[in-house]
Amino acid sequence: MKARIITIGDEILIGQIVDTNSAWLATQLHQLGIGIESIVSISDTREAIHGALDAVNGVELVIMTGGLGPTKDDITKGALAEWFNSGWRTDERVLARVEEHFAIRGIPMPEVNREQAEVPEVCEVLFNAHGSAPGMWFEKNETVFISMPGVPFEMKSIFADEAIPKIQSRMKGLPIVHKTIMTQGIGESSLMEIITDWETQLRESGLKLAYLPSAGAVRLRITGQGEDQYALQRQIDSQVGNVLPLITDYAFGFDDERLEVALGRILKKFGKTMSTAESCTGGYLSHLITTIPGSSAYFLGGAVTYSNEAKENLLSVRNESLVQFGAVSEEVALQMAEGARKVYGSDYAVATTGVAGPDGGTEEKPVGTVWIAVAGPNGSKAHRFRMGDERERNIRKSALQGMQLLRKQILEDEGISPLEVLH
Amino acid sequence: MKARIITIGDEILIGQIVDTNSAWLATQLHQLGIGIESIVSISDTREAIHGALDAVNGVELVIMTGGLGPTKDDITKGALAEWFNSGWRTDERVLARVEEHFAIRGIPMPEVNREQAEVPEVCEVLFNAHGSAPGMWFEKNETVFISMPGVPFEMKSIFADEAIPKIQSRMKGLPIVHKTIMTQGIGESSLMEIITDWETQLRESGLKLAYLPSAGAVRLRITGQGEDQYALQRQIDSQVGNVLPLITDYAFGFDDERLEVALGRILKKFGKTMSTAESCTGGYLSHLITTIPGSSAYFLGGAVTYSNEAKENLLSVRNESLVQFGAVSEEVALQMAEGARKVYGSDYAVATTGVAGPDGGTEEKPVGTVWIAVAGPNGSKAHRFRMGDERERNIRKSALQGMQLLRKQILEDEGISPLEVLH
Repeated sequence: MKARIITIGDEILIGQIVDTNSAWLATQLHQLGIGIESIVSISDTREAIHGALDAVNGVELVIMTGGLGPTKDDITKGALAEWFNSGWRTDERVLARVEEHFAIRGIPMPEVNREQAEVPEVCEVLFNAHGSAPGMWFEKNETVFISMPGVPFEMKSIFADEAIPKIQSRMKGLPIVHKTIMTQGIGESSLMEIITDWETQLRESGLKLAYLPSAGAVRLRITGQGEDQYALQRQIDSQVGNVLPLITDYAFGFDDERLEVALGRILKKFGKTMSTAESCTGGYLSHLITTIPGSSAYFLGGAVTYSNEAKENLLSVRNESLVQFGAVSEEVALQMAEGARKVYGSDYAVATTGVAGPDGGTEEKPVGTVWIAVAGPNGSKAHRFRMGDERERNIRKSALQGMQLLRKQILEDEGISPLEVLH
Repeated sequence: MKARIITIGDEILIGQIVDTNSAWLATQLHQLGIGIESIVSISDTREAIHGALDAVNGVELVIMTGGLGPTKDDITKGALAEWFNSGWRTDERVLARVEEHFAIRGIPMPEVNREQAEVPEVCEVLFNAHGSAPGMWFEKNETVFISMPGVPFEMKSIFADEAIPKIQSRMKGLPIVHKTIMTQGIGESSLMEIITDWETQLRESGLKLAYLPSAGAVRLRITGQGEDQYALQRQIDSQVGNVLPLITDYAFGFDDERLEVALGRILKKFGKTMSTAESCTGGYLSHLITTIPGSSAYFLGGAVTYSNEAKENLLSVRNESLVQFGAVSEEVALQMAEGARKVYGSDYAVATTGVAGPDGGTEEKPVGTVWIAVAGPNGSKAHRFRMGDERERNIRKSALQGMQLLRKQILEDEGISPLEVLH
């Protein structure tokens, strides 16, 4: 069973927006066991849309996003009605939804939104609970065509709630099983050297392995496909059990678990609280931690201290240390972590201070130099890192490294092996 | 002149990574006046790569990313050598680069990285200054094929420094001119109602308009294409001059300028400093501000205060106010902003406190309720907002709204019209 994703919109072709919808849809289809043959982005013109629809031979499921908004540059619905040779009807449920959407917010409904309740006669409506543009389901020559708005949270809700049940009742594919091991703190090549023998026998056993690097983290994805889903699952689990002892220092979770989730899981498990003291990461570390719902149970707060005065006033960093060693130093990192632990009253605190770049580097402390400290009930430790040349990557790598150091410190204090708390 | 972008990798087709490379490449090509016919993502198999190469009829420029790493799942280079019927050679400059890369970091070079200096004989190498996998330039039947690694910062450097000069010397397209107006604080439909008459005459004059929404912001993109680039530029500038007075409250900049950049520009212009006090945004506001190089000139720091105790200890929020009005209230927002302004010694401070969700909502203060306060030399003001249902969107919208309120307050204090500081 094969699917194609088509995203419609000049904004993608000129690079004004990044296509995150396709990645999300791909994940969903993959979990359904439906392989994706290709993802295609095209212009929002009738010609491009009709051309893409004409070219879907051999694909059973076509998922389109974009071009369904209320404004004049949104032409997908008209192009679909033409291609399916369909007249129009008003969908009363959609009309009521559109009217309610504006009523709740106390905003008068723009007239143009009324047209959003007009749909091609031949389609079934996929209801949009979060917006005014409905999704649509068409069928032609054994192929299903789904069209959804491009606004991500509207599209996701339509697809998950409305489209997936209909797809599942219609299609089935050869099961794909995969498991991903999340690692932090080691590069792709070095990781490969460590696990090369394991990788060779993995491939010989018929499974596939992919290395997926991103700033400061590498994901290892093991994939198998076959008739017997349960046998595949057991085979993959056994391979994971073999490789983990080789990468204990780096693995922190499975299946796209983010490091901030893995850290939160451990804080909750042991009933500990934390705070942050950030210089070079500028709030990104506390941002990552607080994206997780429920993080207020263990995250008490963080101090972003860019200026030396802020480091002194909020975190009680000693002026002499700043003068003698500089803001980017082991002493200041330790004092920042200890200061945050005290002022927030948390069990643990993690501090970052470094040269994110592009300016501020010196011969002794070049761009990318970062000190990270963890303070806890058993004392404080600081570690020096040499990240890279790019500001945003340095910020991200430092924040991830801070979370990993804190995670390991908690496990050490609790006397737990890292492999026991992966899940 | 038409280009196609092909991204290679199963990690995109199963949704494990988002394809940001294509958006960046599309922006670059657009600026060169090269239109993009489509963006295609395919599997990293020989069959898929050869199929995509076979299908490029009529496209003059094919840009491929991905599958050039050192690990066993990276097969693009081999597939290209086969398709171009080419033997192999060792590129000495690349070999020296790979060796140096590991020497600088003091890491022994994994043997597998030596193979990265092997390239198909028929290609020209596009040097990779930031990594070990080289880019490659092929030509066949009037079409140029460029292959680059998928790691974003390596790809960007190869494309900008090595590929663009070669492309420019070879190709030219009918110039495309566009200008984007950045707005914050108004939805797509409401914006359209305000500018509908202007939009109609814009389209009649032969220009195109696109609305590009994202969480808390809408971009308005005006595009024209024609022989005379300078006449087009004047025509678009004149149209922008006509629409800005209609959207003064929302417009903050042009051409993908981020709000954090626009805010920083104004702080620098008037020599002012700022700090933040964040509850519901959890550090995201200070993170956005500190992603900008040089932000330490005007950003002194920020306090993330999730717990009530942290609000009291760091920002001197009164316990009675927390008890009487709750943490999500006008009084607490004002005290947070005033507390940050004082403790950081900044000219301005902006504070956020709200219910980001998914939990914590009440009938009186449902999920999405956010108070944002700005404290400055002429006093403090707080504003109540009703964002949406989704945690990450609420965090982002609140952070953007906080920056916009601060920006407007500074302009009001300085007696400057918002239209004078767009640029």
